[in-house]
Amino acid sequence: MPPALIAIDWGTSSFRAFLTARDGAILDRIETADGVATMPPGGFPAAFARLAGPWLAGRAGLPVLASGMVGSRNGWREAPYVPCPADPAAIAAKLVTVFAGEATVHIAPGLSFEDATGRPDVMRGEEVEILGLAEAGAGLVVLPGSHSKWARVESGCVTSFRTFVTGEVFAAIRDHTLVGAFARNPSSGAPGPIGPAFALGACRGAEASRGENGAGLIGALFGARTLPLMGKLPETDAADWLSGLLIGAEIAEARRLFSGGAPLLAGAPTLVERYRAAFAALGDSALAAPPGAAARGLFRLALDAGLIA
Amino acid sequence: MPPALIAIDWGTSSFRAFLTARDGAILDRIETADGVATMPPGGFPAAFARLAGPWLAGRAGLPVLASGMVGSRNGWREAPYVPCPADPAAIAAKLVTVFAGEATVHIAPGLSFEDATGRPDVMRGEEVEILGLAEAGAGLVVLPGSHSKWARVESGCVTSFRTFVTGEVFAAIRDHTLVGAFARNPSSGAPGPIGPAFALGACRGAEASRGENGAGLIGALFGARTLPLMGKLPETDAADWLSGLLIGAEIAEARRLFSGGAPLLAGAPTLVERYRAAFAALGDSALAAPPGAAARGLFRLALDAGLIA
Repeated sequence: MPPALIAIDWGTSSFRAFLTARDGAILDRIETADGVATMPPGGFPAAFARLAGPWLAGRAGLPVLASGMVGSRNGWREAPYVPCPADPAAIAAKLVTVFAGEATVHIAPGLSFEDATGRPDVMRGEEVEILGLAEAGAGLVVLPGSHSKWARVESGCVTSFRTFVTGEVFAAIRDHTLVGAFARNPSSGAPGPIGPAFALGACRGAEASRGENGAGLIGALFGARTLPLMGKLPETDAADWLSGLLIGAEIAEARRLFSGGAPLLAGAPTLVERYRAAFAALGDSALAAPPGAAARGLFRLALDAGLIA
Repeated sequence: MPPALIAIDWGTSSFRAFLTARDGAILDRIETADGVATMPPGGFPAAFARLAGPWLAGRAGLPVLASGMVGSRNGWREAPYVPCPADPAAIAAKLVTVFAGEATVHIAPGLSFEDATGRPDVMRGEEVEILGLAEAGAGLVVLPGSHSKWARVESGCVTSFRTFVTGEVFAAIRDHTLVGAFARNPSSGAPGPIGPAFALGACRGAEASRGENGAGLIGALFGARTLPLMGKLPETDAADWLSGLLIGAEIAEARRLFSGGAPLLAGAPTLVERYRAAFAALGDSALAAPPGAAARGLFRLALDAGLIA
């Protein structure tokens, strides 16, 4: 089947592209470290030509759709946020276009959301994964990471979402505090296999998030130091415990906003396993999503935008 | 009045010493950056001789009492933690001694505490400040900082305490995350004067800590990015807001454990003002303690240890 779309997930630190057929099948793919953060000023057209050029040779009219930080203020061109609730048609209606040689590149907007109390939230790039998972029937989506996203989807429409700074807070505490000194001990290193300390941490994090037993998160974090110091946790388990604490706190926080059945989890496999273990430790559950969500979401957007004949 | 005691508060990053008379009056004082972290292996006797030597000249029998990280595993000699509840006599009974030339240096232990759910906590150095404030009649003490300490004192006895990693979490997020990028913007810099964004942040932090309106701390932290990004907070206010968020969360957390009247706050004057503003924003109150708590606490310990004739 001939190519019908070049779909690009162009984020801060990576460039992932999918040469896609009219039925959504992926014919070829590229993944490089040419993230938006690595682009020199004005460098997007040349990078695009270098990366996607081989696919466009002899197919100048092939539509191109890109999502992610490429559409941010520091990207190729800013595509303003579309407020939630937002369905694929509403997002597709707000693509912005740039030209690179003979190609027209459509850039997808991010999403914004403001809750009843006026708290704003934004995402850029994750929305195509969420749309892809919605195609797979998801009603509640969790995308773990530096900035974990939880999103509610109803009949294909993203109705609400919320960001949790779990991964960034973990790394900052582990690498840049005295409290994190045991967790960054080279003999323990980054959390590897999920051990029992992870589940203990997750339960403590959920308890802290709920204020049970007088606990709270800023106090509970001191446990990463005092538990090993007082012989209540092996030093080598401190990173696993701290990871559990923050993920457990995220889940308890998020469940106040996103109740209901098991969410669909998508992301790096080791992180998805870690989150599944935390859900289980809290007596909750989540399912690992099938791979390929971003490509499916971009394909869906391209259909709604009329880019595929 | 002749000197009766050399009282030393020897912490990680500073050396503070007080030449004290028999009635507690301070006759002379030293403050240097010769903290425990700067000591070479085996360097304590020489540093002590250099710093306190002039006071000891011709007074070889003058008792010396030191508290703080000097008594930690990485200090001059480890003085094991005394479990709470602990009164001055119990602490004084656990001094350890080292010899430096003709001088005998008594090193005070830190305190440990384990709550009903088995969560351990420790302090080292702050206990003398707490004892000093107890002498001033305090029932509830707050020592803000990298590791804020809240302590309950009953009839001069430290009955319970808890650590909150507020200052370290603030610095790690401001300096080492994307979420903190606006807060570390050189045009905004470190929190300076306390502005209205601080009170807003404090209220959001308390709300998050209590789980009100579906909020939680890991989600609320994203506001340091989204509020400026969405035009709801000037970028230059992001540091002040983030500082308020974490201090407000600490106070709400701590108040679950330490209810009752206005606590006595002791520490760096700018930090004490910041905490007083956060208490006020939350409809609560705290009082700035009179200075000199550490010297008073060390004097009290020296009396209980029989070091002063």
